[in-house]
Amino acid sequence: MQIAILNDKILPYEEVGHEYLDRGLFFGDGVYEVIRSYDGRIFALDEHIERFSASLKAIEITKVDINQVRDKIILAFAKSNIPNACIYFHITRGSGPRNHAGTDDLEPNFFLTVKELEDDTKMKTEGISVITYPDQRWKRCDIKSLNLLPNVMAKREAAKRDAFEAIFVNDEGFITEGSSSAFFAIHQKKLQTSPLSANILPSITRKFVVKAAANISLEIVDNSLTPQQAALCDELFIAVTTKDIVPVVKFDDKIIGDGNPGQYTKALAEEFRKFTIL
Amino acid sequence: MQIAILNDKILPYEEVGHEYLDRGLFFGDGVYEVIRSYDGRIFALDEHIERFSASLKAIEITKVDINQVRDKIILAFAKSNIPNACIYFHITRGSGPRNHAGTDDLEPNFFLTVKELEDDTKMKTEGISVITYPDQRWKRCDIKSLNLLPNVMAKREAAKRDAFEAIFVNDEGFITEGSSSAFFAIHQKKLQTSPLSANILPSITRKFVVKAAANISLEIVDNSLTPQQAALCDELFIAVTTKDIVPVVKFDDKIIGDGNPGQYTKALAEEFRKFTIL
Repeated sequence: MQIAILNDKILPYEEVGHEYLDRGLFFGDGVYEVIRSYDGRIFALDEHIERFSASLKAIEITKVDINQVRDKIILAFAKSNIPNACIYFHITRGSGPRNHAGTDDLEPNFFLTVKELEDDTKMKTEGISVITYPDQRWKRCDIKSLNLLPNVMAKREAAKRDAFEAIFVNDEGFITEGSSSAFFAIHQKKLQTSPLSANILPSITRKFVVKAAANISLEIVDNSLTPQQAALCDELFIAVTTKDIVPVVKFDDKIIGDGNPGQYTKALAEEFRKFTIL
Repeated sequence: MQIAILNDKILPYEEVGHEYLDRGLFFGDGVYEVIRSYDGRIFALDEHIERFSASLKAIEITKVDINQVRDKIILAFAKSNIPNACIYFHITRGSGPRNHAGTDDLEPNFFLTVKELEDDTKMKTEGISVITYPDQRWKRCDIKSLNLLPNVMAKREAAKRDAFEAIFVNDEGFITEGSSSAFFAIHQKKLQTSPLSANILPSITRKFVVKAAANISLEIVDNSLTPQQAALCDELFIAVTTKDIVPVVKFDDKIIGDGNPGQYTKALAEEFRKFTIL
């Protein structure tokens, strides 16, 4: 008789719920997005939907009606009545007996949560500390997949060292991005960030940061930095959907600038804020 | 109000079961093992338990009593009464609100299944086809983690091309291992396989293959091959817990040897079989 154990419970395999047989769990065989709202309005929904579609396509999860996904996001957000919400959702290839390739009859699983965003005022006004961490991720970080163990390991190391974020450094010695953020440096009035050709996620917040930079006449340069170079920059910040622009004031224990959020970072954040109230 | 959607069901977040909030699902934040039995006896249990402990340690999942895991395996196997069983189990860091670093109060989740192995006689007597596929995995493949999306993608490509397995080739052009197996070549009476220093899983079946090779006086060489070199070898095979030695007779559409399982591969399989009946 086929048997299963769920924690301490032993039972016939046939009685195991499909949620325990999710390929998201067995293989990380799924993709996700995180969206936020500002004061009751979902921000950059189209961009997130578009990237989500690209991720689904890249790992060949078909049978997903993207308009239904969109409707669910809007419905759940409306129902939540949370003005500043974090909307997380993922789709996996489906549930079934563990088998790497999967079968054609699988029905994708959809999961979504809407929660209130934590207050990030302190973080934004005082800035955060970051550490560097070896980029041990796979070679398709352009896909926003559920394979996030290297990100978890990096974030755990950051937490141990009282830092908010871990910034990945690849084998060539260059910064790629944060474990859950994009990374930016400002030096001599130039905004620098890794080119999208690097093994990084095409960040949506990055798009708006670049737009904001143009608005305040900050020159934008696609350029990968070493940690040594980054530590010597005038200003550093990370960009992440849930918090947009967060100043970095400590980088691997080195104080950035005068230890306070920089003037251009503040100007960018102000400019970014304008996009969110349109 | 915090909201969730599970497939088509909308509900308050508080009512979402902990199985949907498993960090194994959100991040692949867990490790696994596959063990098999031969004719009513679990094979190489100690070795698998040891490797599982190493994987848990590597990603800092503590709070696991490894002897309890062992007891559960033995109990479930006994209860199943399946002589030739495939025993799969994983442990994740636990369930909780999605947060990369996790919190100290998480309780690991344990999941195990015991199922009957599929008959592999045809595969073993006729041999299998394999294809090569770019190794896009992360840099810690020595950890047997739930981050297996690149393996899924490789296996799906193999299935599309009527092959049983995909053999990973790294950026340097060398074979590392299969998407769910170790890879071996025999040429001029020498058994060759990737050194463990490569980014590969320390295969337990490999250990027994090496032992079997010594018993039949086959010289063993730690050596990474290119696909071109592999295709010209006298014999090829993969080794995997659930099937031990499986001859490879076609490699990227190139016929290996005379297109039948080779003599040394057969001799190794016979020798391997002896370990399983001790």
